[in-house]
Amino acid sequence: MEDFKEIVDELEKLIEEHNYYGIKTLLKDIEPADLSLILQEFPKKIGTLFRLLPKDLAAECFVEMDSDYQETLISSFTDVELKEVMDEIYVDDTVDIIEEMPANVVKRILNSSDAETRKAINEILKYPDDSAGSIMTTEYVSLDEDITVEDALKRIRRTGLDKETIYTCYVTKPDRTLLGYITAKKLLLSDDEMIISDIMETNVIFVYTHEDKELVAKEMSKYDLLAIPIVDKENRLVGIVTVDDAIDVIEEEATEDIEKMAAIIPSDKPYLATSPFEIWRKRIPWLILLMLSATLTSLVITSFEGKLTSISTVISGNILIAFMPMIMGSGGNAGGQTSVTIIRGLALEEIRMGDIFRVLFKELRVSLLCGLTLALATFAKMLLIDWFILRSINTDFTHAAIVCFVVSVTLLLTIIASKLVGCLLPIIAKRIGFDPAVMASPFITTIVDVLSLLIYFGIALTIL
Amino acid sequence: MEDFKEIVDELEKLIEEHNYYGIKTLLKDIEPADLSLILQEFPKKIGTLFRLLPKDLAAECFVEMDSDYQETLISSFTDVELKEVMDEIYVDDTVDIIEEMPANVVKRILNSSDAETRKAINEILKYPDDSAGSIMTTEYVSLDEDITVEDALKRIRRTGLDKETIYTCYVTKPDRTLLGYITAKKLLLSDDEMIISDIMETNVIFVYTHEDKELVAKEMSKYDLLAIPIVDKENRLVGIVTVDDAIDVIEEEATEDIEKMAAIIPSDKPYLATSPFEIWRKRIPWLILLMLSATLTSLVITSFEGKLTSISTVISGNILIAFMPMIMGSGGNAGGQTSVTIIRGLALEEIRMGDIFRVLFKELRVSLLCGLTLALATFAKMLLIDWFILRSINTDFTHAAIVCFVVSVTLLLTIIASKLVGCLLPIIAKRIGFDPAVMASPFITTIVDVLSLLIYFGIALTIL
Repeated sequence: MEDFKEIVDELEKLIEEHNYYGIKTLLKDIEPADLSLILQEFPKKIGTLFRLLPKDLAAECFVEMDSDYQETLISSFTDVELKEVMDEIYVDDTVDIIEEMPANVVKRILNSSDAETRKAINEILKYPDDSAGSIMTTEYVSLDEDITVEDALKRIRRTGLDKETIYTCYVTKPDRTLLGYITAKKLLLSDDEMIISDIMETNVIFVYTHEDKELVAKEMSKYDLLAIPIVDKENRLVGIVTVDDAIDVIEEEATEDIEKMAAIIPSDKPYLATSPFEIWRKRIPWLILLMLSATLTSLVITSFEGKLTSISTVISGNILIAFMPMIMGSGGNAGGQTSVTIIRGLALEEIRMGDIFRVLFKELRVSLLCGLTLALATFAKMLLIDWFILRSINTDFTHAAIVCFVVSVTLLLTIIASKLVGCLLPIIAKRIGFDPAVMASPFITTIVDVLSLLIYFGIALTIL
Repeated sequence: MEDFKEIVDELEKLIEEHNYYGIKTLLKDIEPADLSLILQEFPKKIGTLFRLLPKDLAAECFVEMDSDYQETLISSFTDVELKEVMDEIYVDDTVDIIEEMPANVVKRILNSSDAETRKAINEILKYPDDSAGSIMTTEYVSLDEDITVEDALKRIRRTGLDKETIYTCYVTKPDRTLLGYITAKKLLLSDDEMIISDIMETNVIFVYTHEDKELVAKEMSKYDLLAIPIVDKENRLVGIVTVDDAIDVIEEEATEDIEKMAAIIPSDKPYLATSPFEIWRKRIPWLILLMLSATLTSLVITSFEGKLTSISTVISGNILIAFMPMIMGSGGNAGGQTSVTIIRGLALEEIRMGDIFRVLFKELRVSLLCGLTLALATFAKMLLIDWFILRSINTDFTHAAIVCFVVSVTLLLTIIASKLVGCLLPIIAKRIGFDPAVMASPFITTIVDVLSLLIYFGIALTIL
């Protein structure tokens, strides 16, 4: 897509010249995913341009568009045009479109579908958001167990055109109970007269309609599947999810986790299509909560205020305050590193609940290594830079060394505490059924801030 | 895998009873991805258990294992056993295994492969890490352009067994120049006597061997492909990448981005298989860098120290210090939210470089909304809780209101500054060819800490 701008410029010129033949030639070989982006650059001409596309390309391009543009297009369609587009696209895509449309448009779409499609659409629409059922399609190939390979291939040839995939075929009883599956590869490589039930795989990975769509993606990724069957409580096949949709789920879930880790309430709308007010709504709850919880840090500081002033006869209390942000920051960073590692490990199932003590012991050793390194580095840096060069620690060597020692020991203990908190919180969250991703850096930072101040002032008062 | 523990317990019992027939029956129907995890629970028995598996399951299970266990197994194999396993697995998986093995094991693997496979392995090994070439397989179906559909299907039947996929077949000239592709679906649904060149797709999405493997995943996800051809500089087909490998890349890249955002140097080893020392090496560089850069915050504090003491005749300077962590924390959180949103948007290509001003304007409005909300909330909270209830702001109403006002205005300006920094830094990083993910929360927090202190003390000195 380096030539995206080139094509847009070329198209703009052709539109000005009313060169419809040129536009047709230019657009007909562009991939649907790119074409949708290009057409969206011409919101006023989108209906005209759309009608210049070959029928199948038009439908594929329509599926890829943002819902605002889909709505504009639908309202410009005649009923015949709408039916033509809807006939070309798969049921799961139709459902995705319907979910974003206002009621009157939904009604038009349903009216333009045949009875069977309408039934399938309503079937899928009744499953809750984020469930396996909500992302499936009903257009799969099903085979009877007692037919031959030859018959199966004939059936695929006859009905395959409208199926989302023909590469995994599902073997079912007449009441649709799932018995097994057979791949197109196996069919092609087997003798014509073999019986399906003799060569099918009966060890089927499937997901129930009501389970989370994340499970669909996980199972497909884990077992390298191109399609996965979705069954109801009676183990009857009701649909399939193909790998391209699973990839979308994987990317969405990663984005959601990243947003949660950054203290944002996840949204499934693209950033540029979201209004500032909506973005504000997704960000402000955590900001307020974290701000309020920072009350604790101010409490710690004010409660130690008197005592800190009393030691300022030896060393100015404000020197200690100058290193407060560094200690809190390092603690937050160290805790964030650990929590994010654990959260991702839990999400990818590299870490399981049984591993909790191995993880804790590992983080304890890592935190000792990190804490000692940072403490030594800080001690050297403070003596060299803050005392010797910058003179911002404005006292004699002995007292400066004591200040550096207090800060370094605080840092060591803060790092250890932060890493253990960062390790424990996501695991506890998972155990009690919360989403571990919420326990990421911002949340842990707040806890670590309080901990590090308590350690800092405690050590300062003990030593000084 | 809820029954993971059950199967492990059952297997343990069977091993104690030396019930080999029972073990065989138990293991033969388990999916390779699960089986590898189960066998790894019995490191001492792994060779024995492995030999009880059917040949094809053994090979698939071997591919899924962690490299430590693969090495243990290989060293327990006779040359004949090694050859049997290697014959069953695809070239790209062999290369993945080889990359983790010590030299003597690599030599044994290469010796146990036939000349053609050895050539393919060496071919793939020569591509740099993370390149498209390094993750491809050479086992694809290629077709001549002038044959019929019938001949093509015959060719697939003859050679398909050893190919990683038969669902996308590539049409090439005798010198392997890529001309187009045709799917197995199209072949099955076309008349037997049709000529490939008449029905093939000539508009091929491909990736060059030396391009980043991330591009492979992006193109496959964008265009919903099951396989993508990898070509050399002369447009000759040298391999393909299948969608299951693309999914692995997508998950790896998301993990890498998450690690970078949390100031960790990415690693492609699973957490539990990484030693504390290695984890320390991935985490300590950023911790030290961020700690050193926090020197700036201490400088700001010490340089304002004298001036702050001078205003403490009216209000104690320490009251202001009590709210410092809250202001820096909120700024860090707000900036982190923005930077993470922008980084993910750039990674998924939802945000492009041309959108920079739209993004900035949007973040400006969002930061005003967030800043005003937080400022008002803080003002109310400080007056109500810190002054009225807790009396931690220990002064009369007028002076308390002034303190609250200073903190609130600082918070507003800090949020605006943080969100703009959080928005600009990743975009600038991308522009100058850096990885935007590095510009996430910890890095931005450090900048925001300095900014917020400057704003805070500046406003305090102006107003008080």
